[in-house]
Amino acid sequence: MVDVKLLGLWYSPACHKVEWALKLKGVKYEYIEENLQNKSPLLLESNPVHKKIPVLIHNGKPICESSVIAEYIDETFEGPFILPKDPYDRAIARFWDKFFDNKMGAVVNTFLHKGEEQEKGKEEVCEMLKILDNELKDKKFFVADKFGYADMAANFVGYWLGVFQDASGVELVTSENFSNFCAWRDVYVKCSQVKEYLPPRNDLLAFIQAYASKA
Amino acid sequence: MVDVKLLGLWYSPACHKVEWALKLKGVKYEYIEENLQNKSPLLLESNPVHKKIPVLIHNGKPICESSVIAEYIDETFEGPFILPKDPYDRAIARFWDKFFDNKMGAVVNTFLHKGEEQEKGKEEVCEMLKILDNELKDKKFFVADKFGYADMAANFVGYWLGVFQDASGVELVTSENFSNFCAWRDVYVKCSQVKEYLPPRNDLLAFIQAYASKA
Repeated sequence: MVDVKLLGLWYSPACHKVEWALKLKGVKYEYIEENLQNKSPLLLESNPVHKKIPVLIHNGKPICESSVIAEYIDETFEGPFILPKDPYDRAIARFWDKFFDNKMGAVVNTFLHKGEEQEKGKEEVCEMLKILDNELKDKKFFVADKFGYADMAANFVGYWLGVFQDASGVELVTSENFSNFCAWRDVYVKCSQVKEYLPPRNDLLAFIQAYASKA
Repeated sequence: MVDVKLLGLWYSPACHKVEWALKLKGVKYEYIEENLQNKSPLLLESNPVHKKIPVLIHNGKPICESSVIAEYIDETFEGPFILPKDPYDRAIARFWDKFFDNKMGAVVNTFLHKGEEQEKGKEEVCEMLKILDNELKDKKFFVADKFGYADMAANFVGYWLGVFQDASGVELVTSENFSNFCAWRDVYVKCSQVKEYLPPRNDLLAFIQAYASKA
């Protein structure tokens, strides 16, 4: 029997990247919702270095960091490949995965914090959007013109970013600017995997609104 | 004919991780030293997002980010495997690779900068050393008790950190503290791959001393 547990938070893009990979592979797993205010002993002992979600526990052995987990899932379970097959395409997908991973903090600072943190965040997010807009000027998706791992890893810019904007009232992406990025995002939100695998927009919006109002 | 170019800096641990992988695989490559004060058009067009070294250019196609490059080398060229074969060991190696990658800035701030940046850096480096010391308490190497990819990725704590200390006079690791980490490092610096593939200690020391004296 496959024993797979995922420690996560329902509103976390990094967790949803992992869940997406598990669902694509058809892996059955037990999902355990964590509480950041009162982290479980299982989380603390499974990820003693970062004490962060997501953590995948496979047959009792923990794996941490969403990108590391996604690669592990791809290499361990049968089913459709998550990363592209071609080594160069894999490299490009990993490049964007890492890029997105490093920008998540700036997005949170922009939309949920105030003052200097917010200003620095905004600057970084605008710089990121310029890069993405330029990258997508001649292509429909990030790698090999196919929806794939880089787009999965881009869930927080493809999906969460718009919800953050609506929840916070801080508007960085309009219909006028970043038109290539917006074209990609329009396709993104209509994609069947996005609709099926990501949390309902209204739930996310209500949650972030409540969070932002307390910030 | 294999056409492999590496854009690098001789004193960069990230570049040496890549060179290490190329050397292990026996890949012939042309090394091109960059100048950070005057980046080459080839670097700027090969890594337009980050404009940073290392960049590997294979048959005209650029790959950026040392971890992404190392995986690409492993998947593309024949020769001994760079990452472990077992998926769980691969995950653990990737975890540590990412961990080290994220700490490099703190090390530079600690030893080459002053004031608040330095204080923050010191705190982060001490926290990192505690984590590593704890991790290495019952084992000789990071993954599967064998010198491997995680140790390659650890080159800047195994090799550079000591040089930084000697060059700057900022002493965080002594023979009294972090004893498990020191035991690993003692083995590390004597390892034949480290001796053969990393830049001579004296050259590095003179370079960092000169840099630190200008900071």
